[in-house]
Amino acid sequence: MPTLAERLGYGPEERLLILNCDDLGFCHAANEAVYEALRRGIATSASLMVPCPWAAEAAARYDGDDVGVHLTLTSEWELYRWAPLTASASLVDEQGRFPRTSEAVWAQASIEDVRRELQAQIDQALAWGIDVSHIDAHMGTVQVRPEYFEVYLDLAAANRLPMRLSGAETEGALGFSFRDRAANQGVTFPDHFIYVPGVGSREVLRQLLPRLRPGVTEAYLHPALDTPELRAAAPDWERRVDDHRLLVEDEELRRWLEDQGVRCIGFRELRAHMRAS
Amino acid sequence: MPTLAERLGYGPEERLLILNCDDLGFCHAANEAVYEALRRGIATSASLMVPCPWAAEAAARYDGDDVGVHLTLTSEWELYRWAPLTASASLVDEQGRFPRTSEAVWAQASIEDVRRELQAQIDQALAWGIDVSHIDAHMGTVQVRPEYFEVYLDLAAANRLPMRLSGAETEGALGFSFRDRAANQGVTFPDHFIYVPGVGSREVLRQLLPRLRPGVTEAYLHPALDTPELRAAAPDWERRVDDHRLLVEDEELRRWLEDQGVRCIGFRELRAHMRAS
Repeated sequence: MPTLAERLGYGPEERLLILNCDDLGFCHAANEAVYEALRRGIATSASLMVPCPWAAEAAARYDGDDVGVHLTLTSEWELYRWAPLTASASLVDEQGRFPRTSEAVWAQASIEDVRRELQAQIDQALAWGIDVSHIDAHMGTVQVRPEYFEVYLDLAAANRLPMRLSGAETEGALGFSFRDRAANQGVTFPDHFIYVPGVGSREVLRQLLPRLRPGVTEAYLHPALDTPELRAAAPDWERRVDDHRLLVEDEELRRWLEDQGVRCIGFRELRAHMRAS
Repeated sequence: MPTLAERLGYGPEERLLILNCDDLGFCHAANEAVYEALRRGIATSASLMVPCPWAAEAAARYDGDDVGVHLTLTSEWELYRWAPLTASASLVDEQGRFPRTSEAVWAQASIEDVRRELQAQIDQALAWGIDVSHIDAHMGTVQVRPEYFEVYLDLAAANRLPMRLSGAETEGALGFSFRDRAANQGVTFPDHFIYVPGVGSREVLRQLLPRLRPGVTEAYLHPALDTPELRAAAPDWERRVDDHRLLVEDEELRRWLEDQGVRCIGFRELRAHMRAS
Protein backbone atom coordinates (compact mmCIF):
# COMPACT_ATOMS: atom_id res chain seq x y z
CA MET A 1 0.00 0.00 0.00
CA PRO A 2 1.41 3.44 -0.91
CA THR A 3 2.40 5.75 1.93
CA LEU A 4 0.54 8.96 2.69
CA ALA A 5 3.41 10.90 1.10
CA GLU A 6 3.04 8.87 -2.07
CA ARG A 7 -0.71 9.29 -2.09
CA LEU A 8 -0.12 13.05 -1.82
CA GLY A 9 2.15 12.84 -4.85
CA TYR A 10 5.55 12.90 -3.17
CA GLY A 11 8.34 10.36 -3.12
CA PRO A 12 8.38 7.64 -0.45
CA GLU A 13 11.49 9.08 1.21
CA GLU A 14 10.32 12.69 1.22
CA ARG A 15 10.09 14.40 4.59
CA LEU A 16 6.97 16.58 4.76
CA LEU A 17 6.26 18.87 7.70
CA ILE A 18 3.07 20.60 8.84
CA LEU A 19 4.01 23.54 11.09
CA ASN A 20 0.74 24.26 12.88
CA CYS A 21 -0.11 27.21 15.13
CA ASP A 22 -2.45 26.26 17.95
CA ASP A 23 -4.73 28.66 19.81
CA LEU A 24 -5.74 31.10 17.07
CA GLY A 25 -8.60 33.16 18.55
CA PHE A 26 -7.48 32.65 22.13
CA CYS A 27 -6.61 36.34 22.59
CA HIS A 28 -5.77 39.35 20.46
CA ALA A 29 -2.02 38.79 20.78
CA ALA A 30 -2.46 35.26 19.41
CA ASN A 31 -4.44 36.45 16.39
CA GLU A 32 -1.75 38.97 15.47
CA ALA A 33 1.04 36.43 15.89
CA VAL A 34 -0.61 33.49 14.13
CA TYR A 35 -1.46 35.44 11.01
CA GLU A 36 2.08 36.83 10.95
CA ALA A 37 3.44 33.31 11.30
CA LEU A 38 1.26 32.10 8.41
CA ARG A 39 1.84 35.07 6.11
CA ARG A 40 5.35 36.32 6.85
CA GLY A 41 6.73 33.32 8.71
CA ILE A 42 7.09 29.63 8.01
CA ALA A 43 3.92 28.28 9.63
CA THR A 44 1.72 26.35 7.21
CA SER A 45 -1.40 25.73 9.27
CA ALA A 46 -3.34 27.08 12.25
CA SER A 47 -6.12 25.91 14.53
CA LEU A 48 -8.94 28.21 15.67
CA MET A 49 -10.40 28.04 19.18
CA VAL A 50 -13.95 28.94 18.17
CA PRO A 51 -15.42 29.56 21.66
CA CYS A 52 -12.69 32.03 22.66
CA PRO A 53 -13.39 35.75 23.02
CA TRP A 54 -11.22 36.70 20.02
CA ALA A 55 -12.33 33.95 17.61
CA ALA A 56 -14.66 36.27 15.68
CA GLU A 57 -11.79 38.71 15.17
CA ALA A 58 -9.58 35.89 13.91
CA ALA A 59 -12.37 34.89 11.52
CA ALA A 60 -12.81 38.46 10.30
CA ARG A 61 -9.10 38.59 9.38
CA TYR A 62 -9.17 35.21 7.64
CA ASP A 63 -8.08 35.41 4.02
CA GLY A 64 -8.07 31.86 2.75
CA ASP A 65 -5.34 30.71 5.13
CA ASP A 66 -4.91 27.02 6.02
CA VAL A 67 -7.03 27.07 9.20
CA GLY A 68 -8.73 24.23 11.04
CA VAL A 69 -10.75 23.98 14.24
CA HIS A 70 -9.02 23.43 17.59
CA LEU A 71 -11.87 21.58 19.30
CA THR A 72 -12.18 23.16 22.73
CA LEU A 73 -13.82 21.91 25.92
CA THR A 74 -11.65 23.72 28.49
CA SER A 75 -11.13 27.31 29.61
CA GLU A 76 -7.85 26.71 31.37
CA TRP A 77 -6.64 30.12 32.53
CA GLU A 78 -7.52 31.29 35.99
CA LEU A 79 -8.15 34.94 35.12
CA TYR A 80 -9.30 34.94 31.49
CA ARG A 81 -12.27 32.74 30.62
CA TRP A 82 -14.64 31.61 27.86
CA ALA A 83 -17.81 29.57 27.53
CA PRO A 84 -19.33 26.96 25.19
CA LEU A 85 -21.28 27.94 22.08
CA THR A 86 -24.14 25.70 23.13
CA ALA A 87 -25.88 26.53 26.40
CA SER A 88 -25.02 23.13 27.91
CA ALA A 89 -24.99 22.89 31.70
CA SER A 90 -22.82 19.74 31.62
CA LEU A 91 -20.02 21.62 29.83
CA VAL A 92 -19.54 24.47 32.32
CA ASP A 93 -18.11 24.97 35.79
CA GLU A 94 -19.62 26.93 38.65
CA GLN A 95 -18.66 30.17 36.87
CA GLY A 96 -20.54 29.23 33.69
CA ARG A 97 -17.27 28.73 31.79
CA PHE A 98 -15.72 25.54 30.39
CA PRO A 99 -13.90 23.68 33.18
CA ARG A 100 -10.22 24.41 33.57
CA THR A 101 -8.90 20.84 33.06
CA SER A 102 -9.61 17.85 30.84
CA GLU A 103 -10.14 15.79 34.00
CA ALA A 104 -12.94 18.12 35.11
CA VAL A 105 -14.56 17.82 31.66
CA TRP A 106 -14.41 14.03 31.75
CA ALA A 107 -15.91 14.01 35.26
CA GLN A 108 -19.01 16.00 34.37
CA ALA A 109 -19.73 16.29 30.63
CA SER A 110 -22.53 14.50 28.85
CA ILE A 111 -21.01 12.91 25.77
CA GLU A 112 -23.98 14.03 23.69
CA ASP A 113 -23.45 17.63 24.84
CA VAL A 114 -19.80 17.22 23.83
CA ARG A 115 -20.80 16.03 20.37
CA ARG A 116 -23.27 18.87 19.88
CA GLU A 117 -20.81 21.52 21.12
CA LEU A 118 -17.94 20.34 18.93
CA GLN A 119 -20.07 20.13 15.80
CA ALA A 120 -21.32 23.65 16.65
CA GLN A 121 -17.68 24.82 16.75
CA ILE A 122 -17.04 23.41 13.27
CA ASP A 123 -20.33 24.87 11.99
CA GLN A 124 -19.52 28.30 13.44
CA ALA A 125 -16.12 28.33 11.76
CA LEU A 126 -17.75 27.42 8.44
CA ALA A 127 -20.46 30.06 8.98
CA TRP A 128 -17.71 32.64 9.48
CA GLY A 129 -16.42 31.71 6.03
CA ILE A 130 -13.43 29.64 7.09
CA ASP A 131 -12.59 26.85 4.68
CA VAL A 132 -11.90 24.48 7.57
CA SER A 133 -8.80 22.41 6.76
CA HIS A 134 -8.77 19.88 9.64
CA ILE A 135 -9.67 19.33 13.28
CA ASP A 136 -7.48 18.89 16.32
CA ALA A 137 -7.95 18.68 20.07
CA HIS A 138 -7.22 21.50 22.50
CA MET A 139 -5.36 20.05 25.51
CA GLY A 140 -5.99 16.62 24.02
CA THR A 141 -9.34 16.46 25.81
CA VAL A 142 -11.08 14.57 23.01
CA GLN A 143 -8.05 12.58 21.88
CA VAL A 144 -6.92 10.59 24.86
CA ARG A 145 -10.09 8.95 26.24
CA PRO A 146 -11.77 6.27 24.09
CA GLU A 147 -15.37 7.52 24.41
CA TYR A 148 -14.28 11.07 23.58
CA PHE A 149 -12.09 9.82 20.77
CA GLU A 150 -15.18 8.22 19.20
CA VAL A 151 -16.78 11.69 18.99
CA TYR A 152 -13.57 13.21 17.62
CA LEU A 153 -13.32 10.51 14.96
CA ASP A 154 -17.03 10.74 14.07
CA LEU A 155 -16.63 14.49 13.55
CA ALA A 156 -13.64 13.98 11.26
CA ALA A 157 -15.49 11.35 9.23
CA ALA A 158 -18.82 13.22 9.08
CA ASN A 159 -17.21 16.53 8.11
CA ARG A 160 -14.65 14.83 5.86
CA LEU A 161 -11.74 16.51 7.60
CA PRO A 162 -8.28 15.21 8.40
CA MET A 163 -7.39 15.09 12.07
CA ARG A 164 -4.39 15.46 14.35
CA LEU A 165 -3.46 12.25 16.09
CA SER A 166 -0.91 11.51 18.73
CA GLY A 167 2.02 9.43 17.55
CA ALA A 168 1.92 5.64 17.24
CA GLU A 169 4.29 5.52 20.22
CA THR A 170 1.49 6.70 22.54
CA GLU A 171 -1.07 4.08 21.50
CA GLY A 172 0.21 1.69 24.15
CA ALA A 173 0.04 4.32 26.86
CA LEU A 174 -3.49 5.35 25.92
CA GLY A 175 -4.59 1.74 25.59
CA PHE A 176 -6.52 1.83 22.32
CA SER A 177 -5.55 1.74 18.65
CA PHE A 178 -6.73 5.20 17.66
CA ARG A 179 -4.63 5.29 14.49
CA ASP A 180 -6.09 2.08 13.13
CA ARG A 181 -9.58 3.20 13.98
CA ALA A 182 -9.12 6.49 12.15
CA ALA A 183 -7.63 4.73 9.12
CA ASN A 184 -10.53 2.27 9.06
CA GLN A 185 -12.97 5.20 8.93
CA GLY A 186 -11.19 6.66 5.91
CA VAL A 187 -9.90 9.64 7.87
CA THR A 188 -6.50 11.04 6.89
CA PHE A 189 -3.93 12.03 9.52
CA PRO A 190 -0.19 12.76 9.57
CA ASP A 191 2.18 9.81 9.94
CA HIS A 192 4.09 11.32 12.84
CA PHE A 193 3.45 13.84 15.58
CA ILE A 194 5.95 15.89 17.54
CA TYR A 195 4.59 16.20 21.03
CA VAL A 196 5.60 19.20 23.15
CA PRO A 197 5.02 19.09 26.90
CA GLY A 198 3.20 22.33 27.67
CA VAL A 199 3.89 25.38 25.51
CA GLY A 200 7.11 26.53 23.83
CA SER A 201 8.35 24.33 20.99
CA ARG A 202 11.91 25.55 20.32
CA GLU A 203 13.88 22.93 22.23
CA VAL A 204 11.76 19.99 21.15
CA LEU A 205 11.95 21.05 17.51
CA ARG A 206 15.69 21.65 17.77
CA GLN A 207 16.14 18.10 19.03
CA LEU A 208 13.61 16.23 16.90
CA LEU A 209 13.54 17.95 13.51
CA PRO A 210 17.05 16.72 12.59
CA ARG A 211 15.71 13.20 13.09
CA LEU A 212 12.60 13.73 10.98
CA ARG A 213 11.40 10.49 9.44
CA PRO A 214 10.10 10.10 5.87
CA GLY A 215 6.40 10.87 5.52
CA VAL A 216 4.16 13.59 6.95
CA THR A 217 4.98 14.94 10.41
CA GLU A 218 2.91 17.48 12.32
CA ALA A 219 4.61 19.87 14.73
CA TYR A 220 2.70 22.53 16.63
CA LEU A 221 3.56 25.85 18.21
CA HIS A 222 1.66 28.54 20.13
CA PRO A 223 2.76 31.91 18.74
CA ALA A 224 1.61 35.14 20.40
CA LEU A 225 2.85 38.72 20.52
CA ASP A 226 4.34 40.16 23.69
CA THR A 227 1.54 42.48 24.89
CA PRO A 228 0.11 43.42 28.31
CA GLU A 229 -2.98 41.35 27.43
CA LEU A 230 -0.94 38.20 26.78
CA ARG A 231 1.21 38.63 29.87
CA ALA A 232 -1.86 39.00 32.07
CA ALA A 233 -3.73 36.07 30.49
CA ALA A 234 -1.08 33.41 30.10
CA PRO A 235 1.53 32.55 32.76
CA ASP A 236 3.43 30.77 29.94
CA TRP A 237 3.51 33.94 27.81
CA GLU A 238 7.30 33.95 27.32
CA ARG A 239 7.24 30.60 25.56
CA ARG A 240 4.40 31.76 23.32
CA VAL A 241 6.38 34.86 22.38
CA ASP A 242 9.38 32.66 21.64
CA ASP A 243 7.24 30.47 19.36
CA HIS A 244 6.32 33.59 17.40
CA ARG A 245 9.98 34.52 17.13
CA LEU A 246 10.83 31.01 15.97
CA LEU A 247 8.26 31.12 13.16
CA VAL A 248 8.62 34.71 12.01
CA GLU A 249 11.92 36.36 12.87
CA ASP A 250 14.33 33.56 13.55
CA GLU A 251 16.55 32.15 10.85
CA GLU A 252 17.43 28.90 12.66
CA LEU A 253 14.41 26.81 11.82
CA ARG A 254 13.95 28.28 8.36
CA ARG A 255 17.55 27.63 7.41
CA TRP A 256 17.53 24.13 8.80
CA LEU A 257 14.43 23.20 6.81
CA GLU A 258 16.01 24.54 3.62
CA ASP A 259 19.34 22.80 4.22
CA GLN A 260 17.66 19.49 4.90
CA GLY A 261 15.24 19.72 1.99
CA VAL A 262 12.22 19.32 4.23
CA ARG A 263 9.06 20.37 2.45
CA CYS A 264 6.40 22.20 4.47
CA ILE A 265 2.78 21.51 3.65
CA GLY A 266 -0.60 22.38 5.17
CA PHE A 267 -3.51 20.25 6.24
CA ARG A 268 -5.35 21.23 3.10
CA GLU A 269 -3.33 18.78 1.02
CA LEU A 270 -4.41 16.01 3.36
CA ARG A 271 -8.01 17.15 3.11
CA ALA A 272 -7.92 17.17 -0.70
CA HIS A 273 -6.57 13.64 -0.66
CA MET A 274 -9.16 12.47 1.86
CA ARG A 275 -12.04 14.00 -0.05
CA ALA A 276 -10.84 12.53 -3.35
CA SER A 277 -10.54 9.02 -1.90
CA MET B 1 -38.37 64.91 54.63
CA PRO B 2 -34.58 65.26 54.68
CA THR B 3 -32.72 65.05 51.39
CA LEU B 4 -30.39 62.15 50.54
CA ALA B 5 -27.43 64.47 51.18
CA GLU B 6 -28.76 65.26 54.64
CA ARG B 7 -29.43 61.62 55.37
CA LEU B 8 -25.79 60.92 54.41
CA GLY B 9 -24.72 63.59 56.91
CA TYR B 10 -24.04 66.50 54.54
CA GLY B 11 -25.63 69.91 54.29
CA PRO B 12 -28.74 70.40 52.13
CA GLU B 13 -26.87 72.58 49.65
CA GLU B 14 -23.81 70.36 49.35
CA ARG B 15 -22.99 69.07 45.87
CA LEU B 16 -21.86 65.44 46.02
CA LEU B 17 -20.55 63.59 42.97
CA ILE B 18 -20.07 59.89 42.26
CA LEU B 19 -17.52 59.49 39.45
CA ASN B 20 -18.15 55.94 38.29
CA CYS B 21 -16.11 53.85 35.83
CA ASP B 22 -18.27 51.55 33.74
CA ASP B 23 -17.06 48.37 32.04
CA LEU B 24 -14.49 47.06 34.52
CA GLY B 25 -13.71 43.50 33.39
CA PHE B 26 -14.61 44.16 29.75
CA CYS B 27 -11.02 43.74 28.55
CA HIS B 28 -7.51 43.87 29.98
CA ALA B 29 -7.03 47.53 28.98
CA ALA B 30 -10.17 48.46 30.93
CA ASN B 31 -8.97 46.67 34.08
CA GLU B 32 -5.67 48.53 34.01
CA ALA B 33 -7.32 51.89 33.43
CA VAL B 34 -10.18 51.54 35.91
CA TYR B 35 -7.92 50.60 38.81
CA GLU B 36 -5.62 53.48 37.91
CA ALA B 37 -8.60 55.81 37.84
CA LEU B 38 -9.73 54.60 41.27
CA ARG B 39 -6.29 54.54 42.91
CA ARG B 40 -4.28 57.32 41.25
CA GLY B 41 -7.08 59.29 39.63
CA ILE B 42 -10.29 60.90 40.82
CA ALA B 43 -12.82 58.13 40.13
CA THR B 44 -14.72 57.04 43.24
CA SER B 45 -16.62 54.01 41.98
CA ALA B 46 -16.55 51.32 39.29
CA SER B 47 -18.92 48.73 37.85
CA LEU B 48 -17.80 45.20 36.99
CA MET B 49 -19.13 43.33 33.94
CA VAL B 50 -19.08 39.89 35.53
CA PRO B 51 -19.66 37.79 32.35
CA CYS B 52 -16.79 39.41 30.44
CA PRO B 53 -13.57 37.51 29.68
CA TRP B 54 -11.45 39.69 31.96
CA ALA B 55 -13.82 39.90 34.95
CA ALA B 56 -11.91 37.28 36.94
CA GLU B 57 -8.69 39.24 36.47
CA ALA B 58 -10.43 42.42 37.65
CA ALA B 59 -11.65 40.50 40.69
CA ALA B 60 -8.18 39.12 41.40
CA ARG B 61 -6.81 42.68 41.49
CA TYR B 62 -9.63 43.96 43.72
CA ASP B 63 -8.36 45.47 46.95
CA GLY B 64 -11.41 46.80 48.73
CA ASP B 65 -12.20 49.36 46.04
CA ASP B 66 -15.73 50.80 45.64
CA VAL B 67 -16.96 48.32 43.01
CA GLY B 68 -20.50 47.38 42.03
CA VAL B 69 -21.98 45.07 39.40
CA HIS B 70 -22.72 46.36 35.90
CA LEU B 71 -25.62 44.00 35.13
CA THR B 72 -24.94 42.70 31.63
CA LEU B 73 -27.26 41.07 29.09
CA THR B 74 -25.49 42.14 25.88
CA SER B 75 -22.23 41.31 24.13
CA GLU B 76 -22.22 44.30 21.82
CA TRP B 77 -18.93 44.18 19.93
CA GLU B 78 -18.81 42.44 16.60
CA LEU B 79 -15.40 40.81 17.00
CA TYR B 80 -14.96 40.29 20.75
CA ARG B 81 -17.67 38.36 22.57
CA TRP B 82 -18.83 36.92 25.89
CA ALA B 83 -21.57 34.64 27.19
CA PRO B 84 -23.95 34.41 30.18
CA LEU B 85 -22.93 32.75 33.43
CA THR B 86 -26.06 30.63 33.35
CA ALA B 87 -26.45 28.24 30.43
CA SER B 88 -29.71 29.91 29.32
CA ALA B 89 -30.74 29.44 25.70
CA SER B 90 -33.06 32.48 25.79
CA LEU B 91 -30.13 34.78 26.64
CA VAL B 92 -27.84 33.93 23.70
CA ASP B 93 -27.69 34.58 19.98
CA GLU B 94 -26.88 32.09 17.24
CA GLN B 95 -23.21 32.24 18.27
CA GLY B 96 -23.97 31.26 21.86
CA ARG B 97 -23.11 34.76 23.11
CA PHE B 98 -25.34 37.46 24.61
CA PRO B 99 -27.16 39.33 21.82
CA ARG B 100 -25.51 42.49 20.55
CA THR B 101 -28.37 44.92 21.34
CA SER B 102 -30.90 45.55 24.08
CA GLU B 103 -33.65 45.24 21.48
CA ALA B 104 -32.51 41.71 20.62
CA VAL B 105 -32.51 40.81 24.33
CA TRP B 106 -36.03 42.14 24.80
CA ALA B 107 -37.23 40.22 21.73
CA GLN B 108 -36.07 36.81 22.92
CA ALA B 109 -35.20 36.63 26.64
CA SER B 110 -37.28 34.84 29.22
CA ILE B 111 -37.69 37.23 32.12
CA GLU B 112 -37.05 34.41 34.58
CA ASP B 113 -33.78 33.58 32.80
CA VAL B 114 -32.89 37.29 33.08
CA ARG B 115 -33.57 37.27 36.81
CA ARG B 116 -31.51 34.12 37.36
CA GLU B 117 -28.60 35.39 35.25
CA LEU B 118 -28.42 38.78 36.94
CA GLN B 119 -28.57 37.32 40.45
CA ALA B 120 -25.80 34.91 39.36
CA GLN B 121 -23.71 37.91 38.29
CA ILE B 122 -24.09 39.50 41.75
CA ASP B 123 -23.40 36.16 43.45
CA GLN B 124 -20.27 35.60 41.34
CA ALA B 125 -18.90 39.03 42.26
CA LEU B 126 -19.53 38.29 45.94
CA ALA B 127 -17.94 34.84 45.59
CA TRP B 128 -14.85 36.51 44.13
CA GLY B 129 -14.63 38.53 47.35
CA ILE B 130 -15.92 41.83 46.00
CA ASP B 131 -17.79 43.87 48.60
CA VAL B 132 -20.42 44.83 46.00
CA SER B 133 -21.32 48.50 46.45
CA HIS B 134 -24.29 48.91 44.07
CA ILE B 135 -25.81 47.68 40.82
CA ASP B 136 -26.25 49.43 37.50
CA ALA B 137 -27.37 48.48 34.02
CA HIS B 138 -25.03 47.91 31.07
CA MET B 139 -26.51 49.64 28.01
CA GLY B 140 -29.60 50.38 30.11
CA THR B 141 -31.06 47.02 29.09
CA VAL B 142 -32.75 46.40 32.47
CA GLN B 143 -33.51 50.06 33.22
CA VAL B 144 -35.70 51.31 30.42
CA ARG B 145 -38.40 48.64 30.01
CA PRO B 146 -40.93 48.25 32.85
CA GLU B 147 -40.84 44.44 33.10
CA TYR B 148 -37.03 44.45 33.13
CA PHE B 149 -36.99 47.32 35.58
CA GLU B 150 -39.03 45.18 37.99
CA VAL B 151 -36.21 42.61 37.98
CA TYR B 152 -33.57 45.34 38.41
CA LEU B 153 -35.47 46.84 41.34
CA ASP B 154 -36.12 43.44 42.93
CA LEU B 155 -32.38 42.68 42.77
CA ALA B 156 -31.52 45.99 44.44
CA ALA B 157 -34.08 45.41 47.19
CA ALA B 158 -33.25 41.71 47.73
CA ASN B 159 -29.49 42.32 47.84
CA ARG B 160 -29.87 45.59 49.74
CA LEU B 161 -27.84 47.50 47.18
CA PRO B 162 -28.24 51.05 45.88
CA MET B 163 -28.88 51.35 42.17
CA ARG B 164 -28.16 53.70 39.32
CA LEU B 165 -31.27 55.33 37.92
CA SER B 166 -31.81 57.58 34.95
CA GLY B 167 -32.67 61.16 35.82
CA ALA B 168 -36.18 62.32 36.72
CA GLU B 169 -36.27 64.11 33.35
CA THR B 170 -36.45 60.79 31.52
CA GLU B 171 -39.39 59.36 33.46
CA GLY B 172 -41.84 60.95 31.03
CA ALA B 173 -40.01 59.55 28.01
CA LEU B 174 -39.85 56.03 29.48
CA GLY B 175 -43.47 56.20 30.61
CA PHE B 176 -43.22 54.85 34.14
CA SER B 177 -42.25 56.36 37.49
CA PHE B 178 -39.15 54.29 38.18
CA ARG B 179 -37.77 56.69 40.79
CA ASP B 180 -40.93 56.57 42.90
CA ARG B 181 -41.03 52.81 42.62
CA ALA B 182 -37.44 52.46 43.80
CA ALA B 183 -38.03 54.88 46.68
CA ASN B 184 -41.13 52.97 47.72
CA GLN B 185 -39.06 49.78 47.91
CA GLY B 186 -36.57 51.43 50.22
CA VAL B 187 -33.82 51.38 47.59
CA THR B 188 -31.33 54.27 47.63
CA PHE B 189 -30.23 55.95 44.39
CA PRO B 190 -28.49 59.22 43.46
CA ASP B 191 -30.65 62.33 43.05
CA HIS B 192 -29.30 63.19 39.63
CA PHE B 193 -27.72 61.38 36.72
CA ILE B 194 -25.50 62.78 33.99
CA TYR B 195 -26.35 60.89 30.84
CA VAL B 196 -23.69 60.55 28.14
CA PRO B 197 -24.76 59.49 24.65
CA GLY B 198 -22.40 56.63 23.78
CA VAL B 199 -18.91 56.61 25.25
CA GLY B 200 -16.56 59.51 26.02
CA SER B 201 -17.67 61.80 28.85
CA ARG B 202 -15.38 64.85 28.56
CA GLU B 203 -17.67 67.24 26.70
CA VAL B 204 -20.80 66.38 28.65
CA LEU B 205 -18.97 66.76 31.97
CA ARG B 206 -17.42 70.02 30.83
CA GLN B 207 -20.89 71.39 30.08
CA LEU B 208 -22.87 69.95 32.97
CA LEU B 209 -20.58 69.84 35.98
CA PRO B 210 -20.53 73.64 36.33
CA ARG B 211 -24.31 73.45 36.68
CA LEU B 212 -24.26 70.68 39.27
CA ARG B 213 -27.31 70.82 41.53
CA PRO B 214 -27.27 70.24 45.29
CA GLY B 215 -27.52 66.61 46.32
CA VAL B 216 -25.93 63.43 44.95
CA THR B 217 -25.16 63.25 41.22
CA GLU B 218 -23.77 60.21 39.43
CA ALA B 219 -21.57 60.68 36.37
CA TYR B 220 -20.03 57.74 34.53
CA LEU B 221 -17.01 57.27 32.30
CA HIS B 222 -15.43 54.33 30.42
CA PRO B 223 -11.67 54.50 31.01
CA ALA B 224 -9.33 52.15 29.15
CA LEU B 225 -5.65 52.14 28.21
CA ASP B 226 -4.56 52.59 24.60
CA THR B 227 -3.44 49.05 23.68
CA PRO B 228 -3.70 46.88 20.54
CA GLU B 229 -6.32 44.79 22.36
CA LEU B 230 -8.55 47.80 23.05
CA ARG B 231 -8.18 49.20 19.54
CA ALA B 232 -9.19 45.88 18.01
CA ALA B 233 -12.12 45.30 20.38
CA ALA B 234 -13.78 48.69 20.61
CA PRO B 235 -14.39 51.01 17.64
CA ASP B 236 -14.93 53.78 20.23
CA TRP B 237 -11.49 53.19 21.78
CA GLU B 238 -10.28 56.78 21.46
CA ARG B 239 -13.07 58.08 23.68
CA ARG B 240 -12.32 55.38 26.27
CA VAL B 241 -8.66 56.38 26.29
CA ASP B 242 -9.71 60.01 26.71
CA ASP B 243 -11.88 59.06 29.71
CA HIS B 244 -8.82 57.50 31.30
CA ARG B 245 -6.84 60.67 30.64
CA LEU B 246 -9.64 62.76 32.14
CA LEU B 247 -9.68 60.75 35.36
CA VAL B 248 -5.97 60.10 35.84
CA GLU B 249 -3.67 62.54 34.06
CA ASP B 250 -5.75 65.59 33.33
CA GLU B 251 -5.87 68.54 35.69
CA GLU B 252 -9.03 70.11 34.24
CA LEU B 253 -11.67 68.08 36.03
CA ARG B 254 -9.70 67.71 39.25
CA ARG B 255 -9.09 71.45 39.49
CA TRP B 256 -12.65 72.31 38.70
CA LEU B 257 -13.99 70.00 41.42
CA GLU B 258 -11.62 71.56 43.97
CA ASP B 259 -12.43 75.12 42.97
CA GLN B 260 -16.15 74.49 43.20
CA GLY B 261 -16.00 72.61 46.48
CA VAL B 262 -17.69 69.56 44.99
CA ARG B 263 -17.24 66.55 47.21
CA CYS B 264 -16.70 63.17 45.54
CA ILE B 265 -18.20 60.11 47.19
CA GLY B 266 -18.66 56.44 46.30
CA PHE B 267 -21.71 54.23 46.20
CA ARG B 268 -20.66 52.67 49.48
CA GLU B 269 -21.94 55.66 51.45
CA LEU B 270 -25.34 55.18 49.84
CA ARG B 271 -25.23 51.48 50.65
CA ALA B 272 -24.38 52.13 54.30
CA HIS B 273 -27.31 54.52 54.54
CA MET B 274 -29.67 52.07 52.81
CA ARG B 275 -28.66 49.17 55.02
CA ALA B 276 -29.01 51.28 58.17
CA SER B 277 -32.50 52.45 57.25
